[in-house]
Amino acid sequence: MGKPAPISPFAPASQPSVPEVPGVRFATAEAGIRYQGRTDLLLGVFSPGTQVAGVLTRSKTRSAPVDWCAIGLLEGQARALVVNSGNANAFTGKKGLEAVVITADAAAAAVGCAPGEVFIASTGVIGEPLEAGKFAHLLGDLAGKASAATWDAAARAVMTTDTFAKLATRTTSIDGHDVVINGFCKGAGMIQPDMATMLCFVFTDAPIDAAALKPLVADSSDRTFNCVTIDGDTSTSDTLLVFATGEAGKRGCPRISEATDPRIANFAAALHDLLRELAILVAKDGEGITKFVTIEVDGAEDDRAARRIGLSIANSPLVKTAIAGEDANWGRVVMAVGKSGEAADRDKLSIRFGDILVAREGERAPSYREEEVALYMKQPEIVVRVDLGIGSGRATVWTCDLTHGYIDINAEYRS
Amino acid sequence: MGKPAPISPFAPASQPSVPEVPGVRFATAEAGIRYQGRTDLLLGVFSPGTQVAGVLTRSKTRSAPVDWCAIGLLEGQARALVVNSGNANAFTGKKGLEAVVITADAAAAAVGCAPGEVFIASTGVIGEPLEAGKFAHLLGDLAGKASAATWDAAARAVMTTDTFAKLATRTTSIDGHDVVINGFCKGAGMIQPDMATMLCFVFTDAPIDAAALKPLVADSSDRTFNCVTIDGDTSTSDTLLVFATGEAGKRGCPRISEATDPRIANFAAALHDLLRELAILVAKDGEGITKFVTIEVDGAEDDRAARRIGLSIANSPLVKTAIAGEDANWGRVVMAVGKSGEAADRDKLSIRFGDILVAREGERAPSYREEEVALYMKQPEIVVRVDLGIGSGRATVWTCDLTHGYIDINAEYRS
Repeated sequence: MGKPAPISPFAPASQPSVPEVPGVRFATAEAGIRYQGRTDLLLGVFSPGTQVAGVLTRSKTRSAPVDWCAIGLLEGQARALVVNSGNANAFTGKKGLEAVVITADAAAAAVGCAPGEVFIASTGVIGEPLEAGKFAHLLGDLAGKASAATWDAAARAVMTTDTFAKLATRTTSIDGHDVVINGFCKGAGMIQPDMATMLCFVFTDAPIDAAALKPLVADSSDRTFNCVTIDGDTSTSDTLLVFATGEAGKRGCPRISEATDPRIANFAAALHDLLRELAILVAKDGEGITKFVTIEVDGAEDDRAARRIGLSIANSPLVKTAIAGEDANWGRVVMAVGKSGEAADRDKLSIRFGDILVAREGERAPSYREEEVALYMKQPEIVVRVDLGIGSGRATVWTCDLTHGYIDINAEYRS
Repeated sequence: MGKPAPISPFAPASQPSVPEVPGVRFATAEAGIRYQGRTDLLLGVFSPGTQVAGVLTRSKTRSAPVDWCAIGLLEGQARALVVNSGNANAFTGKKGLEAVVITADAAAAAVGCAPGEVFIASTGVIGEPLEAGKFAHLLGDLAGKASAATWDAAARAVMTTDTFAKLATRTTSIDGHDVVINGFCKGAGMIQPDMATMLCFVFTDAPIDAAALKPLVADSSDRTFNCVTIDGDTSTSDTLLVFATGEAGKRGCPRISEATDPRIANFAAALHDLLRELAILVAKDGEGITKFVTIEVDGAEDDRAARRIGLSIANSPLVKTAIAGEDANWGRVVMAVGKSGEAADRDKLSIRFGDILVAREGERAPSYREEEVALYMKQPEIVVRVDLGIGSGRATVWTCDLTHGYIDINAEYRS
């Protein structure tokens, strides 16, 4: 590792103060897996009966922990979460699976549950064997000291090249009963859909069955994390898990067993909102970021086409470097629309930077004034609006610019 | 434009000496379209009866000149080629088409042919109106002074951010009669399949009908230019045109009217070889290049899958930055295989850097020695070999690393 990257200019001025989530406790440790002088191991402990739903990377070379979580999600029962940073335990062959089993067994013994109720995530370098022996023996001690008020520490323990912790909270209600949703995630490179986060964990005391939670998580993640891209690279480890302890049931909150139950509407909206906030925080911590970029696509053939066009723009190195250079190079936006492969009619396309119309009907807008748009491009947050003019498909995609900082971070990550 | 980028370390020490192609003449001019102090206008003049076949960008927002060439290729008759650099005449609306028509009319008058026999290509900035009036009046003079021995000058006139001219030649035979094939192309950013070149022009005196030439060009371009990527961005202007003057017929060479004619085999092989050389020169002049990278994929489900996997690796910013940093980060190669969406089995995958086996059967190879591979990564030319181990699909993809130089060039191209 070289010198640490500077903190993203989009880091929040202060971390939100998040309430406890009944039934959720955390402890962290410095296991020295790869990093020194910082926490790199997180144990989450959940009350009996906790339900879990999630979304995992669609990579064809996914990591051993992702394989493990996929099996656990079939049952949807969770009692513990173990996350390590510094080593992704990906492409580590049989040893990788062995490390997962050692970890699950140790956590199960520490918490008093079945290994299948332990969820595991690893993030960091790929292809290096993860020695579970380095940290499995710490889990018993961590289970003993796990506390309900350690959210900031938990969010920090899962960071790799992140420059700030990403933590968010919502309070909502189910049938008149307050429930809380907290979440944290980590980014910051190898970020593109399926999933976009490397790791995101959300916790609620709402009593919701895994079967009811699952479609909510899948739908929201498609419109949040799967609309974030930093470099178009898809991690082998991307994991989003939502744990529902059900503790609010003790206060009279009814149990939700179907996603179609109308009483879940507020919760679904709050969960979506929370995931959106966390997804945006990932983009705002993009490696080397100097500009936070929102791509709004409208008028596409359908929503799926709109998202693909948005991602094509957001992933274009030429668009990203132009924005880094504060250049309103809308020609490159046209190029990225064209290469997406989605239906587009050059002569119906319009492009705005912020509210400034720069191009329409296949050519530069007559109202276009270079000075006006040049001033806009100096803003830290840039919105690129593309209207295809051929349908009603819409999507919003979040990304960042491509800068020397990205090169600095990634040309020396492993060595 | 900032200061000029340094010349690629992979520029050939000297330009090849290319023979004349009977029936092909060129002239160039400094029209001042965008650049000052260099040529930016090329006129090619071909003898009557010249046939043409080509491949054009699949971008949905292709430029006005590409629209024009698509129509001309239906007839397959060519008498002139006009290329300007500095302005791509893309996303320029009705004005763009008008500029093309003015250019074609002027060239047709200068050469004495129909406007539909004039082929036009433009390269440079997108979205700025191209004023054909700046150069159309020069075409008459250029037609008068066009000469058969100006290949190097022709290749130079079409450059934009290229740091060297890309020129190649082959001599082959049809039915025992020698024919020559010369070609030149320009790259160097916004380079990825469909087509990979921005512009490539090839000229032969072989007497081949457009109908026979077309499948040869399509097939070869798929395995050459469409296997080159620099940044994954697809130009709105990509154009490959192959002109066959047929002048060798005057020396007794038989006319080929079908691609299945066995007498065309040598020519087809030489054409493919020439396109491959030119495609590699494009990758070797990738913006900001410090490493030339060849990705060899084997054992994929089929050739198409192999190419997609190769491009996924070649386009990964994390792979490209790792190579720039001389880091044999094969974990990122695994990631890129996984995100390609093509069939892969983590436990059957093997990866080599050059001849050094770094990973196999889902984990690091036991024989792996960091020092050995670190030494290899210091070479200027890097070969990444991936064997999927599940089929017989193969592909080779050429690319370069991603460096500060790329950012420098593209964060200030337009301004």
